[in-house]
Amino acid sequence: MRALVYHGPRKVSVDEVPDAKIEKPTDALVRITATNICGSDLHMYEGRTDVEQGKVLGHENMGEVIEVGSGVDRVKVGDMVCLPFNIGCGFCKNCEAGLTGFCLTTNPPNAGAAYGYASMGPYNGGQAELLRVPYADWNALVLPEDAREKQNDYVMLSDILPTGYHGTELAQVGFGESVVIWGAGPVGLMAALSADLRGADQIFVVDRQPDRLRLVSKLGATPIDDSAGDAVQQVLDATRGEGADKGVEAVGYQAHDTRGEEAPGVTINNLIAAVRPTGRIGVVGVFVPQDPQAPDDAAKEGQFGIDFGTFFFKGQAMGTGQANVKQYNRQLRNLIHRDRLHPGQIVSHELNLDQAAEGYEHFDDREDGWTKVVLHP
Amino acid sequence: MRALVYHGPRKVSVDEVPDAKIEKPTDALVRITATNICGSDLHMYEGRTDVEQGKVLGHENMGEVIEVGSGVDRVKVGDMVCLPFNIGCGFCKNCEAGLTGFCLTTNPPNAGAAYGYASMGPYNGGQAELLRVPYADWNALVLPEDAREKQNDYVMLSDILPTGYHGTELAQVGFGESVVIWGAGPVGLMAALSADLRGADQIFVVDRQPDRLRLVSKLGATPIDDSAGDAVQQVLDATRGEGADKGVEAVGYQAHDTRGEEAPGVTINNLIAAVRPTGRIGVVGVFVPQDPQAPDDAAKEGQFGIDFGTFFFKGQAMGTGQANVKQYNRQLRNLIHRDRLHPGQIVSHELNLDQAAEGYEHFDDREDGWTKVVLHP
Amino acid sequence: MRALVYHGPRKVSVDEVPDAKIEKPTDALVRITATNICGSDLHMYEGRTDVEQGKVLGHENMGEVIEVGSGVDRVKVGDMVCLPFNIGCGFCKNCEAGLTGFCLTTNPPNAGAAYGYASMGPYNGGQAELLRVPYADWNALVLPEDAREKQNDYVMLSDILPTGYHGTELAQVGFGESVVIWGAGPVGLMAALSADLRGADQIFVVDRQPDRLRLVSKLGATPIDDSAGDAVQQVLDATRGEGADKGVEAVGYQAHDTRGEEAPGVTINNLIAAVRPTGRIGVVGVFVPQDPQAPDDAAKEGQFGIDFGTFFFKGQAMGTGQANVKQYNRQLRNLIHRDRLHPGQIVSHELNLDQAAEGYEHFDDREDGWTKVVLHP
Amino acid sequence: MRALVYHGPRKVSVDEVPDAKIEKPTDALVRITATNICGSDLHMYEGRTDVEQGKVLGHENMGEVIEVGSGVDRVKVGDMVCLPFNIGCGFCKNCEAGLTGFCLTTNPPNAGAAYGYASMGPYNGGQAELLRVPYADWNALVLPEDAREKQNDYVMLSDILPTGYHGTELAQVGFGESVVIWGAGPVGLMAALSADLRGADQIFVVDRQPDRLRLVSKLGATPIDDSAGDAVQQVLDATRGEGADKGVEAVGYQAHDTRGEEAPGVTINNLIAAVRPTGRIGVVGVFVPQDPQAPDDAAKEGQFGIDFGTFFFKGQAMGTGQANVKQYNRQLRNLIHRDRLHPGQIVSHELNLDQAAEGYEHFDDREDGWTKVVLHP
Repeated sequence: MRALVYHGPRKVSVDEVPDAKIEKPTDALVRITATNICGSDLHMYEGRTDVEQGKVLGHENMGEVIEVGSGVDRVKVGDMVCLPFNIGCGFCKNCEAGLTGFCLTTNPPNAGAAYGYASMGPYNGGQAELLRVPYADWNALVLPEDAREKQNDYVMLSDILPTGYHGTELAQVGFGESVVIWGAGPVGLMAALSADLRGADQIFVVDRQPDRLRLVSKLGATPIDDSAGDAVQQVLDATRGEGADKGVEAVGYQAHDTRGEEAPGVTINNLIAAVRPTGRIGVVGVFVPQDPQAPDDAAKEGQFGIDFGTFFFKGQAMGTGQANVKQYNRQLRNLIHRDRLHPGQIVSHELNLDQAAEGYEHFDDREDGWTKVVLHP
Repeated sequence: MRALVYHGPRKVSVDEVPDAKIEKPTDALVRITATNICGSDLHMYEGRTDVEQGKVLGHENMGEVIEVGSGVDRVKVGDMVCLPFNIGCGFCKNCEAGLTGFCLTTNPPNAGAAYGYASMGPYNGGQAELLRVPYADWNALVLPEDAREKQNDYVMLSDILPTGYHGTELAQVGFGESVVIWGAGPVGLMAALSADLRGADQIFVVDRQPDRLRLVSKLGATPIDDSAGDAVQQVLDATRGEGADKGVEAVGYQAHDTRGEEAPGVTINNLIAAVRPTGRIGVVGVFVPQDPQAPDDAAKEGQFGIDFGTFFFKGQAMGTGQANVKQYNRQLRNLIHRDRLHPGQIVSHELNLDQAAEGYEHFDDREDGWTKVVLHP
Repeated sequence: MRALVYHGPRKVSVDEVPDAKIEKPTDALVRITATNICGSDLHMYEGRTDVEQGKVLGHENMGEVIEVGSGVDRVKVGDMVCLPFNIGCGFCKNCEAGLTGFCLTTNPPNAGAAYGYASMGPYNGGQAELLRVPYADWNALVLPEDAREKQNDYVMLSDILPTGYHGTELAQVGFGESVVIWGAGPVGLMAALSADLRGADQIFVVDRQPDRLRLVSKLGATPIDDSAGDAVQQVLDATRGEGADKGVEAVGYQAHDTRGEEAPGVTINNLIAAVRPTGRIGVVGVFVPQDPQAPDDAAKEGQFGIDFGTFFFKGQAMGTGQANVKQYNRQLRNLIHRDRLHPGQIVSHELNLDQAAEGYEHFDDREDGWTKVVLHP
Repeated sequence: MRALVYHGPRKVSVDEVPDAKIEKPTDALVRITATNICGSDLHMYEGRTDVEQGKVLGHENMGEVIEVGSGVDRVKVGDMVCLPFNIGCGFCKNCEAGLTGFCLTTNPPNAGAAYGYASMGPYNGGQAELLRVPYADWNALVLPEDAREKQNDYVMLSDILPTGYHGTELAQVGFGESVVIWGAGPVGLMAALSADLRGADQIFVVDRQPDRLRLVSKLGATPIDDSAGDAVQQVLDATRGEGADKGVEAVGYQAHDTRGEEAPGVTINNLIAAVRPTGRIGVVGVFVPQDPQAPDDAAKEGQFGIDFGTFFFKGQAMGTGQANVKQYNRQLRNLIHRDRLHPGQIVSHELNLDQAAEGYEHFDDREDGWTKVVLHP
């Protein structure tokens, strides 16, 4: 089969590789129809991770089931399915508690596995013609009859829509509340959609890229341009000096300060300042325990300075971590099916699988208008 | 009346001061019968805060109501009451939500007021013969008929018992779960009692002072002596390498590392390491936004290095802040009344008010056996 | 002052009565600018309660503060305020827990007080020029600067909007879920708005009155006409035979079966049948412990047959009771202020206070198009 | 193999039947070491259900895994396991949400399957030498190394301990709260243990059988003998007239009134009367939709009169249904392992499998002292 393979920093290509296949009775095999390039793929692309060469990338996948193992009861050949980027077993302590992003058996001794991802187990990704799906009855979300026509919406159920929602859940965004989201990339935009779904009354999204700020407005949220003035102050001004009720971090460890320097703590500390006392902050931008190319020694170990005194004095709380996609994807699927949600509206480019390397390049350059890329193998 | 007055670093004395009195229709006046010295009083005593000279200290208070304002309906003259250290109004957005530690009207523009405390408003403390209690119907907890005989238990409802409980609530300690508590001072010990009340199955408490470690054992929890080996490793070893399900920080910004150096981030980073993926950490040890005598410039602004990459990778959450005492004190009062809880068992010394200065000195020296001091004016 | 007074079954008139006035330091006095006739007023109007003759009715009130007692700190003369129909003290066990509909001190020995309402304490209502508001700092919601121009929206914060929301809260309506609401009166319609606010994906509302079913469609929900076929079956058919995820009862004890007979259990049993296993049902239609004019002896004592075997077998849960308005009114106020919610769109008639008796008559006759009446004194 | 087989009302015998065996790749085969007779087995034994003749009974099972299917990854041959009485698939909407008692795929079109139980699917029970366990990785709880020595404790994890806990969870029993439990059978006693684990301060258990009331005292709870006076009044008297904060129903549809007449609604209505306004009631006693031998026509359809007016007026809530055992059994297992819980203390008789019929007879006669029977095949 053909698949997008990682060969080193900024070197990816679509190669012929051995077909994915059923390996265990609980597996399913899926022919991919849509697979996205994710912002977190760029961490690997840029060589900021230890992902091994030869790995097939791609963790935002949907497609058609073409074969199932003998222990698979629910998922049927012919089903259109969307796959959470997390690979869970379904029966460990964490999976049972719904914490499928931290499965204890699919990538030991770490908690959490994913398709085509650094440090997340031996699983190949779905930027390919075929994908092996472990524990298919647990992991595959079956889509309704409009699966193909709303492909750009449903494929977002694999990661960014649940991840954006997770940010608002970690922050416990409530109805009638205000929320500030740092970062207007795909996850930040999905967090804005999610905050609206939860009945927030004011939704601020901070960024500095004009195309992204335009999308914020298009989604009905309030863009805050931090190149035009201190973003924290803008949020305080819009909330009678009090701060937003809740906050979401959707940038991650490659955050940059307003001078353009990489500064991993800047978004977290801005959120502590911009969120009101007793507020909660949900962190879904990716932070990593080891980052050998980080700007300083502490950051290489994933450590940076937090305004902890202020955090405590304000009595804030913070939840973090990758989304447990399965906690949200059924419900979000229903809302897409009923035309209540249209996450696919942020897709800027649809490419053939063979154009994948080109897609990585443009997306990594953050070229104007390259918001979200969907590949169709 | 006589009262313990702050006159500068390590200078306190019991002086004659003007009587506390009713100032508003919603006030009550309480004759203090028991008032504790708190570990956080020592921050002020040592000159680590900006508390003003002349302030009467004391925020852990109980006593008898001797007068009420014309707008007080519930609390009656003659009632024995315990006062939460927080002073709330009862009607702001935070008080209504139960977040009485972050009242928006009693100490504007800050969120949160307290008796006799730095940065917590103009209110005098209760290490005195009399105490003015604002919004008495909201703030005073009326005690049952055994109030005087169980004085050492009930007085703990003012702060340390609810604060310890708050740590376990922020951490969401559940039944059948393990928890590690950093710090075996009064708050850490109350957190251990609280974790037991919530049905935890393993309760580890980390400290290095022998008298405190003995109290941990006495309460039925498992002491971990971090002078005898890496505490994080000890917790991992006791939990099959996985880490405790939940963690509580009960030390605060004056934490010291194992070499005896002040190191404000050490307990937080140890907790991140010792708590399992997806675990929660409740922080009730006090951290401050400004600490002019801190060991380095960042710490002077309440900032220090956090292992944020690990925190995120493990998908942990953290809740912080002073306890909203009113959320817990009714229920804990009931349990004391039914002899289910005996928080007073940690009291080591009962002194007259006139011995207060001496009490501060011994307690601040952390002399062996000076665990908790109650003053009886 | 002039006020709508109850003189016996179907006898109400606007009379001259003594002015409402400040009676305690914690009171405020409000000049009413808008006050609704509620469906539950009709229970009293029809003589189905033991409300005393001479009582001023009206529990859905808003207006301008014209005087405050000496113990009132937050509410100021000149503030536009909306009053929850519940009267709470703010300091009893229930009020502290947010259960302000069940205050233990304002109507002892019962739990819960209200303005101008049978069995709810000695308080006069607000279908009058002036209203005394007890515990004003606790009970009065201060409105923003657009209070007068959006009067028809904000006045709904006194009862029906929070009550509708409470139905969805008791039922724990979640995002991406389906919900069936029994009754398309004002409360049922507000429940539909609330379910949408919570992100429900299918919202069914059952009724048989054409004007109400049209309003259901106007609000974007799905009307189910139970005069056109079994409503339970219609819900099952629309949910692949499974039943709605959640249900809300918005009719109450004067429910009628499809033959037009009064049948107090019919809506509850229909909900048990129409909601899926493990679903929750929120009951905000009013049921009463004594109903001397009920169709049978059991119903006179508020008892009727429930399909409890099915309820248990399906593992359903049910929450009941009048709304604790204060738990929701701040947040809903914010959403009205931001133009996110328009509850006033269901108002069909605005009358002068002097037309109140006429309003009662038309509304009680359930004349076509008399959906919601607002009086302006 | 030998197994206890149902042959009609009050006719059970231990017969030779075909061996249970692996039927699907996700099955495990367990050699039973302990299996209880449950109060709900008596419903079948007495002919009050439609259970088919020839069925092997027994849903409270533990034992040793002797074989696993090719799709089983977690459970290993040699593991000692306890099986929840519920059989879930692990991947339906309900199982995913933790509602494993209402699995949508193991007993369609009903929600919920169980071993050896009327209306709960084609699965044989475990009062036998061998048991087939479907979806073993999902359903089997692996026990620690003390499994055999604490067999009487661990076997209670199959049903009555989680069921008792579920009652307190449905009722949301909180720390410092009072709770009244109706019924001091095994489930009621486990509810009392669970309420204590949750930090309740007063735990009342109502019954009239002296042996059961003695056990209540032994567990540290307060027995209420309803043959010695109105139980509701006794609860009110013990709670200053207010009622218990929470209630649990642990009797079910074969409840009897104080005159000894079967009266299915009596416990529910007593609970509504004995629980305070805003209280919650958890119903874990079994109620059934069809009961052909019930005392009246309504009850034959599972319907009976509920004091719904009072229920609503008091703003109470009620949760029902069989326990989702998997939500609690891990945590409770940990507590047994740590010697914090000893549910096995209520075992009155341990019999060989061959004595099973005799055990049914004595237990069904409710002979004094026959509290709980464990069979050891």
